[in-house]
Amino acid sequence: MPGYSIGIDFGSLSARAVVMDLDSGEVLSSAVSEYEHGILTDRLPNGVPLAVDWAVQIPQDYLDSLGSSVRDAVAAAGISADQVRGIGLDVTASTMLPVSADGSPLCEDPRFSKDPNSYIKVWKHHAAQKYADMIEQAAKQNGSDLLDPFGGHISGEHFLPKAMQIAIESPELYKASDRILEVGDWLVRVLCGTESRGYCGAAFKTYYSEDTGDVPAAFFEMISPELAGLSAKYPENVTFPGDCTGTLTEKGAQLLGLIPGIPVAAAGVDAHTTIYGCGVSRPGQFLMIIGTSTCEMLLSETLSCIDGISGVVKDSVFRDLYTYECGQSGIGDMFAWFAENQVPAEYRSEAEEKGMQIQQLLTQKASMLRPGQNGLVALDWWNGVRSTLMDFSLSGVIAGLSTETSPEEIYRALLESTAFGCRKIIDTLEESGVTIDSLIATGGIPHKNPLMMQIYADVMGRDVLIVERDYTGSVGSAIMAAAAAQGGFADLALLTERYALPFTKVYHPDPASQKVYEDLYAAYCEMYSFFGGKNSLLHRLKDIRKETRGN
Amino acid sequence: MPGYSIGIDFGSLSARAVVMDLDSGEVLSSAVSEYEHGILTDRLPNGVPLAVDWAVQIPQDYLDSLGSSVRDAVAAAGISADQVRGIGLDVTASTMLPVSADGSPLCEDPRFSKDPNSYIKVWKHHAAQKYADMIEQAAKQNGSDLLDPFGGHISGEHFLPKAMQIAIESPELYKASDRILEVGDWLVRVLCGTESRGYCGAAFKTYYSEDTGDVPAAFFEMISPELAGLSAKYPENVTFPGDCTGTLTEKGAQLLGLIPGIPVAAAGVDAHTTIYGCGVSRPGQFLMIIGTSTCEMLLSETLSCIDGISGVVKDSVFRDLYTYECGQSGIGDMFAWFAENQVPAEYRSEAEEKGMQIQQLLTQKASMLRPGQNGLVALDWWNGVRSTLMDFSLSGVIAGLSTETSPEEIYRALLESTAFGCRKIIDTLEESGVTIDSLIATGGIPHKNPLMMQIYADVMGRDVLIVERDYTGSVGSAIMAAAAAQGGFADLALLTERYALPFTKVYHPDPASQKVYEDLYAAYCEMYSFFGGKNSLLHRLKDIRKETRGN
Repeated sequence: MPGYSIGIDFGSLSARAVVMDLDSGEVLSSAVSEYEHGILTDRLPNGVPLAVDWAVQIPQDYLDSLGSSVRDAVAAAGISADQVRGIGLDVTASTMLPVSADGSPLCEDPRFSKDPNSYIKVWKHHAAQKYADMIEQAAKQNGSDLLDPFGGHISGEHFLPKAMQIAIESPELYKASDRILEVGDWLVRVLCGTESRGYCGAAFKTYYSEDTGDVPAAFFEMISPELAGLSAKYPENVTFPGDCTGTLTEKGAQLLGLIPGIPVAAAGVDAHTTIYGCGVSRPGQFLMIIGTSTCEMLLSETLSCIDGISGVVKDSVFRDLYTYECGQSGIGDMFAWFAENQVPAEYRSEAEEKGMQIQQLLTQKASMLRPGQNGLVALDWWNGVRSTLMDFSLSGVIAGLSTETSPEEIYRALLESTAFGCRKIIDTLEESGVTIDSLIATGGIPHKNPLMMQIYADVMGRDVLIVERDYTGSVGSAIMAAAAAQGGFADLALLTERYALPFTKVYHPDPASQKVYEDLYAAYCEMYSFFGGKNSLLHRLKDIRKETRGN
Repeated sequence: MPGYSIGIDFGSLSARAVVMDLDSGEVLSSAVSEYEHGILTDRLPNGVPLAVDWAVQIPQDYLDSLGSSVRDAVAAAGISADQVRGIGLDVTASTMLPVSADGSPLCEDPRFSKDPNSYIKVWKHHAAQKYADMIEQAAKQNGSDLLDPFGGHISGEHFLPKAMQIAIESPELYKASDRILEVGDWLVRVLCGTESRGYCGAAFKTYYSEDTGDVPAAFFEMISPELAGLSAKYPENVTFPGDCTGTLTEKGAQLLGLIPGIPVAAAGVDAHTTIYGCGVSRPGQFLMIIGTSTCEMLLSETLSCIDGISGVVKDSVFRDLYTYECGQSGIGDMFAWFAENQVPAEYRSEAEEKGMQIQQLLTQKASMLRPGQNGLVALDWWNGVRSTLMDFSLSGVIAGLSTETSPEEIYRALLESTAFGCRKIIDTLEESGVTIDSLIATGGIPHKNPLMMQIYADVMGRDVLIVERDYTGSVGSAIMAAAAAQGGFADLALLTERYALPFTKVYHPDPASQKVYEDLYAAYCEMYSFFGGKNSLLHRLKDIRKETRGN
């Protein structure tokens, strides 16, 4: 098909648009636009203070970044507006907001602009955790199977606790909310005027069931009378990924500098959309999206409800395949913490002299060590544990320290710990009968840190294939846009394959290293059991910490 | 008694002499002299390389430092040689050497100067560990009770494994050794020409028994035919602390710049001699000598052979009292490691700007934290564990790390971990029925780090009394010298009391902090049990580390 599609990936702090040639699959251009206010955690722009664990965003920032990233990318590509065949977008999730009947964000209504609950709650807003706990308890007490496909837990990062926070803390606002939407669905509505929910977000973050065709209203009533009417605040229509939600309106065209009538795909969820951009489409492929944190996505023909696996949903990415979503909370974040807090001045000077970044220098020094030489094993729990313990009250551990331990030895132990954490997820999935036949890595770290990827291959005892493409999230959205222009959801797997790049960069496990890592992984598992239990002393440490800090 | 006594404390790297007024107890002067060659770990001065874990010293360095520190101290005191009533000295232990029939060190004999076994093996020489293991195994297999008063273990730092290393690795040298001596006994022999063993060192480091009156020759034969003749290489005579071994010879007087005929006390062992200098003489007093590592000494009327307590001997310090010797291997060492390896450049700059040492700045920042606020608990095992596990294959652990953890929070966790380690020793002693009624601290760190002492009071839930005197080891030797001049061992307790300073500086436990530390100590104990076991994963980590490093 001649022409171009546009994909926009909305991350935590910025949006990136790409223009893709629908014939060759080549990415012609890319443009990034940072959200003016980023993530607000201390106070709103009007000065209203935010409590601990709050994290909100400004809706207008998303619109501004949408407009400018698309305009910049189109200009850089040198194409004309009439050559654009489709538009797709994906957003972090659950990142959500309440809107009025005409789709205006309620934080822009003077009645509610001082209420933090009227703003966008970004995925890492953690102030709704207590509502998540209430929902989980209610589900358990009532024998509900709703959370079975989600590892038996509901995260405070999900949609439902965040909506419940509005209902309970701001009843007037809740009443005034005509709709409560994922930001992705809201942006699609802004572009094409059509109200619909992207299936992937609806199923993974609000428990929409394809079988019953609706959200579990009865369950909502059960947990809280305030939530009884929540279903009425969702758009009725649900659209699968790659299906066309509507076409660009005059107003939407003005925002993007394009022409009306271009198909707009249903909103995607960032990590899921990345699957398309990585050329991953077969069952058994395990995709690691490694960045600040890691999302692991597995395609499978088998359904297995596994304790500690954050979610599994059918048809959320490809027709007739289940997608398992797992995650590791502390990856890049943890390395950055180490580089900032635990590296002596001499290393800083050495990095500056050599014109290297500090993590490059640490990686170089850590590369000189043999596996096991550091005598250390760490638990990679600096940001708590998503998979497979789903417990954010846990924290990190380093064992094996001595007065001979060097900074690069600890840094290597941290790299290794994330590999052990990933191995634990893979083991958990396979022990439940799910097949994994290839490991694929994408994200900034896999490109910048060959040592880490070699460690992953050695710890996993398998080849690790590297996706040699930038902006795989934006490209994934451009592939959804291509599908929206022709074929829709049914053709998404075919289009993903068509636009896939070959995996030419592969890390093979080294048998000697693999052997040492088997022993170290056994030590990791021992510590995992000891510190990961329900009565873990790490819980007590966190409780004591909270108590003394008074929050 | 009018006049003065001189005490010399031989540490790991230097000797310090003091001149004490026998009337007032005032220390008139002090002088330090560093050993020219310090501790050799890479090669001998003649270029012969040393294997891993070796640590040796040069006998002449001790003589040089003895001479110059005494001469300087006497000169600084402005006293005349005929006013000196006694001389006492103490040395680290077991720090030992082989000598010829005339008392000359065999490393000065050209036949043996290239053999590292002919030099002084300093206390921290760890290359004899395998012989310690052999001795311990033999004792267990043969049901010997020899090690019962020593926590059931023999340390590689003790005399016997070091002597066994000579016997097995250098049979010719062993044959040529007329005596194998603690350096303290050798120095006393140099000064007064009389051969004798200081009882404290003999009992604590070579298992000399007061009851049987001799070293256990039968046991020696049992372990190794090479050791059968070892008893014959000990001086027959044994002298109690504060008893006079002999008087200064012409040659000894020349070395010190004094006059012949001055009484010389039996050699003391450093930590034990410090007891006198601290004014500690009552049963129930628990003395913590806190420095690079910590020695804990308890006086008691009760004998209890306690698993994991390094030693208990009667009459080794005071007549009719038992002295328990315990230790924590990583204290100052561990803090220094942290300051060197784990502190970011910004802290270094801040310390420089404020004209502070880095540990001062860390302490200042850590003082701003409330107990429990760091959310961390550490096991203080950076140098392995002396008391109460007696296992040098263990290593350090930090639990509770997050991306919010600051360097000062970890530093405080390390300070706290040493307090927990000390509490564990105290609990172990008390659970065995031994009474502890006061905690007393001495050493450089207690003077420099009030935060640490407050933490100790809070963790222990008891007052911590600070010894407000410098050079307590040297003063202890000066008190032994005073005893040698009059009354001897029998009067040592009386003289210790007479020269004691009142404990005017006291840290009281804060009830609120104490409560938090009870919870944190419970977490410490849980980790202690998990990581401290015989099958601890820390052992495996160390084994793997050794294997990959090839040593």
